Amino acid sequence: MSALRRNTDYGVYLVTDRTLCRGRALADVVAAAVAGGVTVVQLREKHVDTREFVELARALKGLLAPRDVPLLINDRVDVALACGADGVHVGQGDMHPADVRALLGHTALVGLSVETMEQVREAEALDVDYLGVSPVFATSTKTDTAPPWGLDGLARLRVATECTLVAIGGIGAANAEQVLRAGADGLAVVSALCAADDPQRAAEELRGAVRSVRGW
Amino acid sequence: MSALRRNTDYGVYLVTDRTLCRGRALADVVAAAVAGGVTVVQLREKHVDTREFVELARALKGLLAPRDVPLLINDRVDVALACGADGVHVGQGDMHPADVRALLGHTALVGLSVETMEQVREAEALDVDYLGVSPVFATSTKTDTAPPWGLDGLARLRVATECTLVAIGGIGAANAEQVLRAGADGLAVVSALCAADDPQRAAEELRGAVRSVRGW
Repeated sequence: MSALRRNTDYGVYLVTDRTLCRGRALADVVAAAVAGGVTVVQLREKHVDTREFVELARALKGLLAPRDVPLLINDRVDVALACGADGVHVGQGDMHPADVRALLGHTALVGLSVETMEQVREAEALDVDYLGVSPVFATSTKTDTAPPWGLDGLARLRVATECTLVAIGGIGAANAEQVLRAGADGLAVVSALCAADDPQRAAEELRGAVRSVRGW
Repeated sequence: MSALRRNTDYGVYLVTDRTLCRGRALADVVAAAVAGGVTVVQLREKHVDTREFVELARALKGLLAPRDVPLLINDRVDVALACGADGVHVGQGDMHPADVRALLGHTALVGLSVETMEQVREAEALDVDYLGVSPVFATSTKTDTAPPWGLDGLARLRVATECTLVAIGGIGAANAEQVLRAGADGLAVVSALCAADDPQRAAEELRGAVRSVRGW
C-alpha cells in the first residue's frame, strides 16, 4: 500500500457541486474550505463535457497539490488519469472498483459508495480505501439515494467492518460530532461547504468536530 | 505508427445507437452488420452508467476481436482502457485528442469530429488517425450538429487536407457513392445500419458502394 493510501485523513471530505456555490468560482470555494481544514476533495460533475471536466480537474489539482490535499474524481477514471488526480470515487453504477484499481494502479485512492449491508460485504473483498456510507441522513443534494443508514445503521456498520467509513448525506456542523461518535472516520459534505456563507469558517467547524471527537 | 493505425480500413464505419435498434440486441445488430462488411465499429452511449457502458464495450470487443474488426469507444478513454478497445473517437467537447493519445499510447486509433475548416486546421497538428466530417448531410440522429458540410464542403475538404476523412450524417445506400466520390475515405452510419430491416444486407450495400468507387 502506498504512503498516500496509508496516510490519507478523510476527516473533512469535500464533495464539490458547482450548482450550490451561489455564483462563486468553484476554485475559490475549494481554496477557502481547504484553508479551513478540508483534508480530501472529490470533484463531482455529472453534466459537463469531458473536455471541461478535465480542465476543472487540472485547475483543482494545481490548487490542491501544493497544499498536500488529495484530489479524487467522481466516477471518471479517464479524467483522473488526464489530470493526475490521486484517485477515484465510484458508486454502485460506476466503473467496478476492481477495474478502477486495475487502471489506476496500487498507489491510488479508490473509494466506493455503499447503500446496503450486502454492498458492504461485497466491498470487503475489494481493494478499496474507504467506503462512502450513503446516505447517512436524507438529503436534498442527491434525490436518487437509497434509504438513509441513520446513526443506528452507521453504528451497526462500524461494528460489522474494519473498513474506513466516510459518512455522506445531510451532514453539517450541527450533527458532525454525532456522526463521528457513531463510528464515521470522516465526514463527506456537499452543501455544508459549497453553499456556506463562509466556506472556510464552515470547514473549521467540521475540522473542530473531528479534532474534538478524535481527541487530537 | 502501429500496424493497426496503418492498416485500418474506415470504409464502412458503424456508429452504434441502441435506441435505433428497434428492440433487437445491439450485439445481434452489430454481428449482422459486420457479417455484411462493416470494417470499424464505434460504440456510442451518451446516457448510460459507466458500469453498463464497460459491460457493453466488453461484449462488443469479444464479438469483434475474432473478426479483426477494430472497436472504438465514443468519448470515454476509461471505458476504452477497461475493455481493451482499439481506440477512441472524440468530438470537440470531449477529451482533447492530445490527452487521449497520451493516455492510450501511440498504437491506438484516435478519431476526431470536425465541423469547421478551422477545426480541420487545428486537427492537422494533432496525432489523430482520421477526421469525422460531421455532419455531411442534415440528420435526425443528432440534433446538436453544426451546419452540414454538404458534398461541396466535403470536396473542398478533400483538396485542403491529406487526413483520412470519414463522413457522417445522413449517409445511406442512396447517397453512399456520391459521398465517396466527393472524397470520403469512409462512410460512418448510424440509422442506415442500426435501424435497417436487415443490417447485414444494408452493410453489404454500403460495402458494395465502397468497392465500386475504389475499384477494388
